[in-house]
Amino acid sequence: MKNTEAIIVTIGDELLIGQVIDTNSSWMAQQLNAAGILVKKRISIGDSETEIVATLTLTNKEADIVLITGGLGPTSDDITKQVLCKYFKGKMITDQLALENVKHLFTNIYKKPVSEVNLRQADVPDVCTVIQNTRGSAPGMIFHSEGTIFISMPGVPYEMQGIMSEAIPILRERFQLPGIFHRNVLTAGIGESALAELIVDFEKKLPSEIKLAYLPAYGMVRLRLSTTGFDLEKTEKKIEQYFQNLLLLVHPFLVTPTDKPMQEVLGQLLLKLNLTVSTAESCTGGTIAGLISSVPGASQYFEGSIVSYSYAIKEKLLGVKHKTLEESGAVSKETVSEMLDGLLSKMNTDVGIAVSGIMGPAGGMPEKPVGTVWIAVGNKTTKEFYKLHQRFERSKNIEVTAINALNLLRLFILNHYQLK
Amino acid sequence: MKNTEAIIVTIGDELLIGQVIDTNSSWMAQQLNAAGILVKKRISIGDSETEIVATLTLTNKEADIVLITGGLGPTSDDITKQVLCKYFKGKMITDQLALENVKHLFTNIYKKPVSEVNLRQADVPDVCTVIQNTRGSAPGMIFHSEGTIFISMPGVPYEMQGIMSEAIPILRERFQLPGIFHRNVLTAGIGESALAELIVDFEKKLPSEIKLAYLPAYGMVRLRLSTTGFDLEKTEKKIEQYFQNLLLLVHPFLVTPTDKPMQEVLGQLLLKLNLTVSTAESCTGGTIAGLISSVPGASQYFEGSIVSYSYAIKEKLLGVKHKTLEESGAVSKETVSEMLDGLLSKMNTDVGIAVSGIMGPAGGMPEKPVGTVWIAVGNKTTKEFYKLHQRFERSKNIEVTAINALNLLRLFILNHYQLK
Repeated sequence: MKNTEAIIVTIGDELLIGQVIDTNSSWMAQQLNAAGILVKKRISIGDSETEIVATLTLTNKEADIVLITGGLGPTSDDITKQVLCKYFKGKMITDQLALENVKHLFTNIYKKPVSEVNLRQADVPDVCTVIQNTRGSAPGMIFHSEGTIFISMPGVPYEMQGIMSEAIPILRERFQLPGIFHRNVLTAGIGESALAELIVDFEKKLPSEIKLAYLPAYGMVRLRLSTTGFDLEKTEKKIEQYFQNLLLLVHPFLVTPTDKPMQEVLGQLLLKLNLTVSTAESCTGGTIAGLISSVPGASQYFEGSIVSYSYAIKEKLLGVKHKTLEESGAVSKETVSEMLDGLLSKMNTDVGIAVSGIMGPAGGMPEKPVGTVWIAVGNKTTKEFYKLHQRFERSKNIEVTAINALNLLRLFILNHYQLK
Repeated sequence: MKNTEAIIVTIGDELLIGQVIDTNSSWMAQQLNAAGILVKKRISIGDSETEIVATLTLTNKEADIVLITGGLGPTSDDITKQVLCKYFKGKMITDQLALENVKHLFTNIYKKPVSEVNLRQADVPDVCTVIQNTRGSAPGMIFHSEGTIFISMPGVPYEMQGIMSEAIPILRERFQLPGIFHRNVLTAGIGESALAELIVDFEKKLPSEIKLAYLPAYGMVRLRLSTTGFDLEKTEKKIEQYFQNLLLLVHPFLVTPTDKPMQEVLGQLLLKLNLTVSTAESCTGGTIAGLISSVPGASQYFEGSIVSYSYAIKEKLLGVKHKTLEESGAVSKETVSEMLDGLLSKMNTDVGIAVSGIMGPAGGMPEKPVGTVWIAVGNKTTKEFYKLHQRFERSKNIEVTAINALNLLRLFILNHYQLK
C-alpha cells in the first residue's frame, strides 16, 4: 500500500506581498495529517491565470490530492473559479442549493439586500461536485483529473474549515489511508544543540521510518517523533516505545509529553491542584492574562488581572510604594515583589505572576537595557524572582516573556505543591 | 526594463504537518516588495533531499532571486546545507569568520561549552559567499546559477531577519529594481460585496497596471491598490491620484488611509487629543490591553486594565453590584455599564472600554448564545453600548471582539471630541 500525498495551494496576491500571514495552510496540513494524508508541499501564488494554470498542471502530476483555497470572492480580483472552469473544460451553471444558500444568508443572517454579484457566487463549473458552504456564499468544488482530486475552497478560514469538515470524509472514502503518528515533547532549560548531544545515541538507533525533529519554541525546544503505517496497532506501539525512551532521557527538562501549549499545561495543573491564579502585568500589558484565558474553561481557575502600565496604577491598584518605584525603578525585583503582594491581596488567588520590563524599542538605560525583565511568581508565603534578558524586537520580547512567566509559575507550583 | 522576480522557499517538515505557522514568508515578502522585487510564488517543502533538489531546479528556471530558509540547524534532520553543496557542486570548508562567531556566541553570550556539532555550523560549501550571522550560529550563504541568485538563511525568524538586512542591499546592487507602490485603506461598517458595488465604476476605469485587492480583516475590509514602475515619480503620482478618488468614495466607512493596524490608529488619535485610556475586560481576558500596549510608546496614553474574569473580581475591583450580576447576568448592558463606571473611577482615565461576552465553546444559553458580547465605550459623562454576535471559534471570537471594541472607542472619540 502506498502513501496518499497532498499539495496545499493558497491563492491570493495578498499572500505574496506579506500583508497577511497564511494560517490556512497550517490548519489544513494538521487536518490532512490527522487523516493519514502526507502533505508533500505547500504553494502560494497570486491571482494570476498563468500561475494558477501552471500550478494545476504541476500538482496534477505530483499529488493524489490538491487542496486549493482563495480567489473565490465576489470581486473582480478573484479569478480562481473561472480558471478552474477553463482548466477542467467545464461551463458555468447555477447550483440551485448554493443559490438558495446565498439568498438565505442575505435575507436571514446578514439582513441585507442580495445583489447580482452575490447571486453569481452560486455559479459553478458543470464538471465539479459541489460541497455546500453553510458559513458563507462561495461553495466548495471538487474536480477529478487523471487520478488526482482537486478541492477548491474559499480563503476565509471559518468557511474553509466548514468545507474541510465535509471534505475529509470524502477523502477517507476515496483513498486507503495509513495512520500517521506523532509524539511531541516540550522541553525547557536546555538548548537545541545540548539536547542533541543528550540524545545522540537514541537518535543513532532510531529506525529510518521514525523521524525526529527539533522545533524551537519561545526559548524552549519541542521534540517530535513521526511515523506512518497501515498496521495501526503495530505502528503506534513501535513509536510509543521509542517515545517512552526519549521521555526518560529528557526528563529533567520536561514541560509536557504532549503538543499542548504552555497555557494549557499550566491550566491543567491549576485544575488538578484546585488552585486559582491572577496576574499583575506591566510590560506584557495583558498578554499573560490573554494566554491564560485563551484556554476553554479558564474561568475555573483564572480570577483576573491588573494591568498596571503606569506608575500611578502600580501604586493605586497594586499598592507598590512610591519610594520603591523612585529608588529601585519600575523594572526591579523590589517592584515586582510588591506588585505580586498587592495582586494576591486584591485578587485573593492561591498563586500569581507579576512582571515588569522594558520591551523596546525605546526605554532602555545603560544599567537596564531593552529586554530586561523582572518576574515574580509565588503565593502568599513564598515568592521566587527571576531576571531575564530578551533579545528580540518588541512583540517577540512580549510573547517570549509571557510564555516564560507561565513556565516559571508552573515550576513554582511543581516545587511547592503536592500532586495528588 | 523588466521586473525582478523572487520565489520564497521555506524548508522544514514542521511546515507540512501544520505544527508551526510560516511567518517568515510574509516577512520576507514584505521586505522584497519594499525593495521593488515582485514575489511570484512561495513554496514550503519538507527536509527531503529529493524535494529540495526538485525545488532548486524549478526555481532556478522561474525566478531571478530565490530566498531559502530553514534546515540549517546543527541536528541531523537539517540537511539543507549538504543538499545545496551537492546541487551547486561544491565541497565543505570551514569559514574562519563563522567559526570565530560560533566560538564567541558560546563563550560570551550563551556561556556554554561549544561542542563539535556546534563548530560544524561554521562549515560552508566553497562555492558560496557567506553572510555572517551575528544573531546565531548558522551563516547565510549566497549561490549563483544561470543568472539566478540563491540566498540560504536559517529558519529562526530573528536570525533570518538579521541576514536579510544584509541581503537586501546586495540584491539592490545586483538588479535594476523598479518602485513598487501600495496604497491601503481600511474600512469598517460595510461588507465586501456592498463595497464592491459602491466602487464598481471606479474599478472599471482602473488602468490595467494598477491592481485592486479586497482584504477582509476582522469584520472590516481593507482595500489595496498596487502598481510598479521604473519612473518612480510618475508611477507614485498616478497611483496617488486613483487612491484619492477611492478615498472619496469610501469616506463614510473610512478607518485609516494607511496599512496601520487598528490599535495604532487608535493610539495616534489618543496621542493627538492628549487622552488617556484603560480597559475593563471579562471575555477578552486582557487581549484588548495587549493590543493597545503592543504599540511602541503606548505608555503615553495607556494607564492599564482590570481583567475581571470572575464575578467576585467584577464586584470587588470594578464595583459592579451583586444585584446587577444576579438580575441581568455578567453578559449584559447593565454589567458593562457598571464595569465602565468602575474602571474610569479606579483608573482615572479620560476614556475607557468595558467588555463582557461568551466566547465559547461552552457557556452559551438559549437567550445568550455563544458569541454574544456587550461592549461599553465612553467617558465619565457619556457611554455608548453595543451588542455584538460573533460566530467563530473561541480564539477568533476573542480577536474580533477586541478589534471591534477598539474601533467603537475610536468612533466614540471622533464623535465626542474636537480634533484640533
